[in-house]
Amino acid sequence: MSSYLGKNLHISVFGQSHAQAIGVTVDGLPAGERVDMVQLQSFLDRRAPGRDATATPRKEADVPKILCGLVDDVTCGAPLCAVIENTNTRSKDYDRLKDVPRPGHADYTAQIRYGGFQDVRGGGHFSGRLTAPVCIAGGIAIQILQRRGIEIAAHIRSIGGAEDRPFNAIGESKEALQNLKNKKFPVLNDAAEEAMREVIVQARAEGDSVGGVVECMVTGLPAGVGDPMFGGVESRLAAALFGIPAVKGVEFGAGFEVAQMRGSENNDPFVVENGKVVTVSNHAGGILGGITTGMPVVFRLAFKPTPSISREQASISLSRGAGETLTVEGRHDPCIVPRAVPVVEATAALVLLDMLLDAPAVWKKEVTE
Amino acid sequence: MSSYLGKNLHISVFGQSHAQAIGVTVDGLPAGERVDMVQLQSFLDRRAPGRDATATPRKEADVPKILCGLVDDVTCGAPLCAVIENTNTRSKDYDRLKDVPRPGHADYTAQIRYGGFQDVRGGGHFSGRLTAPVCIAGGIAIQILQRRGIEIAAHIRSIGGAEDRPFNAIGESKEALQNLKNKKFPVLNDAAEEAMREVIVQARAEGDSVGGVVECMVTGLPAGVGDPMFGGVESRLAAALFGIPAVKGVEFGAGFEVAQMRGSENNDPFVVENGKVVTVSNHAGGILGGITTGMPVVFRLAFKPTPSISREQASISLSRGAGETLTVEGRHDPCIVPRAVPVVEATAALVLLDMLLDAPAVWKKEVTE
Amino acid sequence: MSSYLGKNLHISVFGQSHAQAIGVTVDGLPAGERVDMVQLQSFLDRRAPGRDATATPRKEADVPKILCGLVDDVTCGAPLCAVIENTNTRSKDYDRLKDVPRPGHADYTAQIRYGGFQDVRGGGHFSGRLTAPVCIAGGIAIQILQRRGIEIAAHIRSIGGAEDRPFNAIGESKEALQNLKNKKFPVLNDAAEEAMREVIVQARAEGDSVGGVVECMVTGLPAGVGDPMFGGVESRLAAALFGIPAVKGVEFGAGFEVAQMRGSENNDPFVVENGKVVTVSNHAGGILGGITTGMPVVFRLAFKPTPSISREQASISLSRGAGETLTVEGRHDPCIVPRAVPVVEATAALVLLDMLLDAPAVWKKEVTE
Amino acid sequence: MSSYLGKNLHISVFGQSHAQAIGVTVDGLPAGERVDMVQLQSFLDRRAPGRDATATPRKEADVPKILCGLVDDVTCGAPLCAVIENTNTRSKDYDRLKDVPRPGHADYTAQIRYGGFQDVRGGGHFSGRLTAPVCIAGGIAIQILQRRGIEIAAHIRSIGGAEDRPFNAIGESKEALQNLKNKKFPVLNDAAEEAMREVIVQARAEGDSVGGVVECMVTGLPAGVGDPMFGGVESRLAAALFGIPAVKGVEFGAGFEVAQMRGSENNDPFVVENGKVVTVSNHAGGILGGITTGMPVVFRLAFKPTPSISREQASISLSRGAGETLTVEGRHDPCIVPRAVPVVEATAALVLLDMLLDAPAVWKKEVTE
Repeated sequence: MSSYLGKNLHISVFGQSHAQAIGVTVDGLPAGERVDMVQLQSFLDRRAPGRDATATPRKEADVPKILCGLVDDVTCGAPLCAVIENTNTRSKDYDRLKDVPRPGHADYTAQIRYGGFQDVRGGGHFSGRLTAPVCIAGGIAIQILQRRGIEIAAHIRSIGGAEDRPFNAIGESKEALQNLKNKKFPVLNDAAEEAMREVIVQARAEGDSVGGVVECMVTGLPAGVGDPMFGGVESRLAAALFGIPAVKGVEFGAGFEVAQMRGSENNDPFVVENGKVVTVSNHAGGILGGITTGMPVVFRLAFKPTPSISREQASISLSRGAGETLTVEGRHDPCIVPRAVPVVEATAALVLLDMLLDAPAVWKKEVTE
Repeated sequence: MSSYLGKNLHISVFGQSHAQAIGVTVDGLPAGERVDMVQLQSFLDRRAPGRDATATPRKEADVPKILCGLVDDVTCGAPLCAVIENTNTRSKDYDRLKDVPRPGHADYTAQIRYGGFQDVRGGGHFSGRLTAPVCIAGGIAIQILQRRGIEIAAHIRSIGGAEDRPFNAIGESKEALQNLKNKKFPVLNDAAEEAMREVIVQARAEGDSVGGVVECMVTGLPAGVGDPMFGGVESRLAAALFGIPAVKGVEFGAGFEVAQMRGSENNDPFVVENGKVVTVSNHAGGILGGITTGMPVVFRLAFKPTPSISREQASISLSRGAGETLTVEGRHDPCIVPRAVPVVEATAALVLLDMLLDAPAVWKKEVTE
Repeated sequence: MSSYLGKNLHISVFGQSHAQAIGVTVDGLPAGERVDMVQLQSFLDRRAPGRDATATPRKEADVPKILCGLVDDVTCGAPLCAVIENTNTRSKDYDRLKDVPRPGHADYTAQIRYGGFQDVRGGGHFSGRLTAPVCIAGGIAIQILQRRGIEIAAHIRSIGGAEDRPFNAIGESKEALQNLKNKKFPVLNDAAEEAMREVIVQARAEGDSVGGVVECMVTGLPAGVGDPMFGGVESRLAAALFGIPAVKGVEFGAGFEVAQMRGSENNDPFVVENGKVVTVSNHAGGILGGITTGMPVVFRLAFKPTPSISREQASISLSRGAGETLTVEGRHDPCIVPRAVPVVEATAALVLLDMLLDAPAVWKKEVTE
Repeated sequence: MSSYLGKNLHISVFGQSHAQAIGVTVDGLPAGERVDMVQLQSFLDRRAPGRDATATPRKEADVPKILCGLVDDVTCGAPLCAVIENTNTRSKDYDRLKDVPRPGHADYTAQIRYGGFQDVRGGGHFSGRLTAPVCIAGGIAIQILQRRGIEIAAHIRSIGGAEDRPFNAIGESKEALQNLKNKKFPVLNDAAEEAMREVIVQARAEGDSVGGVVECMVTGLPAGVGDPMFGGVESRLAAALFGIPAVKGVEFGAGFEVAQMRGSENNDPFVVENGKVVTVSNHAGGILGGITTGMPVVFRLAFKPTPSISREQASISLSRGAGETLTVEGRHDPCIVPRAVPVVEATAALVLLDMLLDAPAVWKKEVTE
């Protein structure tokens, strides 16, 4: 149980940061689904670095090569495999990382787990770069969901102390959600962008990094998706979302705030609107008993600050069993949160498509407007 | 993918609140492990209701009957199945719940998911009562882990606005952790108990309920347990923990606070202490790259206020497609957080034992002091 | 990966021969399916021993107690758990089996696998008795499949050298299949019964046992069920069927005979009959590329002779590391093949219902004649 | 549940016959295992076609490109992905196959399963070509097993009516097994080769094809590997082996012959030899109760004759709903059995390595002679 996931839609992610390639296999995609390659590339570009002062200057050409699974850009029922070749891999001497683990990185734990055989170059299989194949698979899932009226959109809820306004949990306009996807820096309140950028630029100037929160909303999901206990929407989304590097917290609906609420506040009253059952508020985040209510599914993820900072840090030499100082070299994002936004959308899409494939009635309904 | 979980240690939970019985099957327990039945019953008693003014007055005799899997109280390698018979099930007319769903409950989502065939009596399979079998399985896992020097202890971090002190993430004394397990109201700072009880009593007096946070610490785990991506400790714990009813958020280490931290603050510097690699702080909650560092694993869960409140609430009649008011009758916990503490420990134990069975070197080491 | 099985329909079998109970949990049964308890009991009775001279004189009351999962005999979507209490368990001293393993039994392998902690009484978890819970789960699955026009029927193809006629692979009349289910000794050609019984009686008279072949046919399956490679019908059926104790071979369609055939013989030509695509012959056993063709699915299983024979056999004493002779005491079936027939049907039903739940279009179609 | 397999060692196969590439991802390989690339290529060459008159004249360059998972030819703990690019793909017009399905092929079932979107070129994902990636993964597993003293060797047991001698089930000399691996036409009795080749040449001359049986032996497995019921060695091997195209039967030990045996014949008496527990005969094929006995594991697979024959065959036009004749063009193996031998070995190696990873004590023991 490691770099694979899913029941009906089975994804298997592979690659190390400096291996010949990284990629993903997706088994179980329904046949007959067209993949719009231009739209997929646009989606991947949202994750790509190297665009401005708030991101790493590395240039990675995240152009996926789809090896199989499509015939004339339409899924054929066979597993789809896509790879991204690693071209920009300066594999200088990484050996010191085996001896002097970087604080906050997986260097030390990988050393123990793999007995020193792990690939340390660029973080190996633990690199954030592995989110690119997740985005390929998820980008395809998003297109399939959209055809059925399901939209997934995320925004930067906060970076350090700078905050965007939260989603309105009972729903956002289609335009608001669509806008987010067209923004390089996806926030609902444009004023937030400048404050956030400043936080990032400041951190970088100080040789430091900063964390943040991503908030995601899924609209158009029918009621009745999910299973009780460990098969609930929260369980399955969380299992996948915690697979995104740097995520340290996941919450649904009102999340940790529920701890301070009264039942009379937190319970979302039902009403019938235009013949449809809805709730007046949505503290449940669209999920009751692990099953969707038909209201938007809303969740937030906490991302820790990138552990790679240019400041000198205290570590140890494993061989000498003694203290050592360390300066992480190379070009690093002072904040990965903006680039994480499409990764969150992609991961959610994979889980939700997987779950919808359990719900035949829903699955069949293709929106054709 | 529903009421079962696990790879090496496979648990399958069954039962409805008012069915003849509830129970659990555990497949994959290593053979030769003694189950101390008295200790197990004490553990289950921590979850049991009916003890004082802050809990429901129902009396459930959570005495498990172990049908198989043991020979003379020692695991024999065959699946263990334990059941608790439901004796105190006043199955009055629950049919109205199919028509008028209780806000905050799974009544409506179950109705959609199961086409009206769900068991609505007492919440059916969605009842918090289903955490009892989880505690049987987890209580056994806890004994097995303890024999290997691994301790799991949780406390009530907060109820409403009343707070206990947080765990010291780099470790608590063995006594402090042991004390928690002997308390009916497990808090680190005894002064917190009164404040919390007051919050609960107040909510009950107002016909309302209140939520809270449970914090859990696992000590004695070796470094190197876990796998990258979706097989990480966070992913696997979260998938299980979100299966506990009422949980709306899970965070590890510094959790959502990381979003406001700088890398230089959040990174935990390595040092060598008595020949052992440790970290000076533990914002990572004992997990880097999904793999244990050897420091305590620390996580928190947000529990929503019990949706069952005696106040009148707004709902709808599904048959009439129109508004309706609803008063939830019966005896209900105004706050389930105290009773949730052992459930959190049990759930974590199941996941961690499962993961340790992947780590043979660790597994073999039985502590014999 | 042990005593559980399935993707959409997850079954988990528990119990030892002389434990307090044996049973099964079935998670994923669609809600709203009526279980006819009388029909289920009749099905279980087909597996029960103690009926005549060809079976063991033990009397086991295979009356299942359904603990949960049904409301008024209708599935409610929650896991169903059924147990059979073990009443007739003469637990005399079985300890010698730990030292002197019975040839052909799992005594020795269980000793190694479970380090001597296994339950040896009556074969423990390896007992053929564990097929009773499989029949409960499968008996329910059979009812669900029948409602959709899918029939599963098996017969004794051979016992020792005595043979029944084979199924006509392109189909048998509904009556022929139905007849099999009403027979205590299910053969197509009634003349075969006497010869078979004689083989069994002869073996018993000589303190010996005898093996046989069971052949199974499934009609009414639509074309298009199954997945390529390891998700094929053959793979999934075989994985389950080899879980039945004593099975040493599984073959589909023409089976091992294909090895001697030419392609021109073995290929089944397609024709259109009454607007439906069928094949003229059915050497494929209704499966091409792991996917159903719409023709009957046909397969056979080889059962070894019961290892429990009353003749003296050569074995060893593990403690002394030296030879020892052994006489298996107790009452044993000289041939388990007749009782295995419903077990084969039950096992097949569980796998096929699981696979059909992947095929929504098929699933929805309920036959209402 | 389709083109992936395994619990600890998870393989995921991808590709279609005429897609850009085929390949495999292997997740869970233990770190620190050297992959001898020359030995791997030799192994793959055993599966390659185009060597003599008994095989297809196509030339496929089965040279795997390992994209990740190795550092300096040593496993690093990250998933290994290997691809083979398809260079020799004459993608002429295959559209007719969608309308006129080839008898014995998956054309028709894929058409139904994938609604006409399947890749028909060269058999798509159902092509025997997909066994090449299985051989890459399995070839690596074989090297890992060999280091622990476990050998897997298969031979052609029969082709049509021409037979090789069977394995001696209690064991073959190391040389005999090693010899098989060095033969282009792996038989134990060299005299069998000529007879078999004649059968193949004759079939080809008549525009026909022929089936056969492959027998496989695994030596060096310790006792105690496997789990009861559906986790048994037979269940898990069979699930994988039936994933090999054209397999219609799998049997272990004495296999279908047990049906005609008496218990006194079939039971394998235990004896102690040189302090080791062995059985005098091995009708059990090294497996009792699903768990290894320590004796060689022996099994056989029936392969059907290649459905692609150059003779005219009867089929139908799906669009016209009427009969049609068909001649399969292209270059095809008149008998795939010789090429299937390494595929069987590879598949078995993957399953057994997966199962051994559950058995830590065994796993650790590396043979260092």
